[in-house]
Amino acid sequence: MNAQDLLQPLPSRARFAGDKPVKLDCYRSERLLVGLNCLEPGQTQKVHTHAAADKFYFVVSGKARFVVGDRTVDAQAGDLVLAPEGVAHGVEQALERTVLLVAITPAPPQ
Amino acid sequence: MNAQDLLQPLPSRARFAGDKPVKLDCYRSERLLVGLNCLEPGQTQKVHTHAAADKFYFVVSGKARFVVGDRTVDAQAGDLVLAPEGVAHGVEQALERTVLLVAITPAPPQ
Repeated sequence: MNAQDLLQPLPSRARFAGDKPVKLDCYRSERLLVGLNCLEPGQTQKVHTHAAADKFYFVVSGKARFVVGDRTVDAQAGDLVLAPEGVAHGVEQALERTVLLVAITPAPPQ
Repeated sequence: MNAQDLLQPLPSRARFAGDKPVKLDCYRSERLLVGLNCLEPGQTQKVHTHAAADKFYFVVSGKARFVVGDRTVDAQAGDLVLAPEGVAHGVEQALERTVLLVAITPAPPQ
């Protein structure tokens, strides 16, 4: 990683695709993955669980319906969605064009 | 942590104080600390280094002058500032009332 990459304007990094959400890595080490999930309205992320990792989403822009634990919640720009180890989580659907900052520790395999 | 805390609207959690930045925990486990740093204009965070942890800031709102590595950079809402293990980082000064989402892995001692 060069010094330039230590400052990243995230909204300008977002990319979208019509067929599925776009995932981008912003930073990766063994202990941490920071990335973007970019969803068009109606796109989804299947509910899943990390057995030995903590994860969170921060909604940079847009609005999406999340599943987290046994709840379904609508989250919008400025909201933090936590998915600690063992807590099921996913995106039922993006309600608008949505950019999510995602961090997972430790980083999952590439 | 109860289920309610899995969704946190961060702008409404921000708190400010005239004498120094306010730090709030949003989530803490052994492997991850997620929190807010809330700075009034002119407030600072001393430059420091984490020897065995990766950290990042995401600027939720406002604008601040960061030191990161050997650079001084102005970061504003939507910017990601990375401070991997061993990279010096701090806030030279907040240029506006600023809310930073901060994640550190592993979590530092309380």
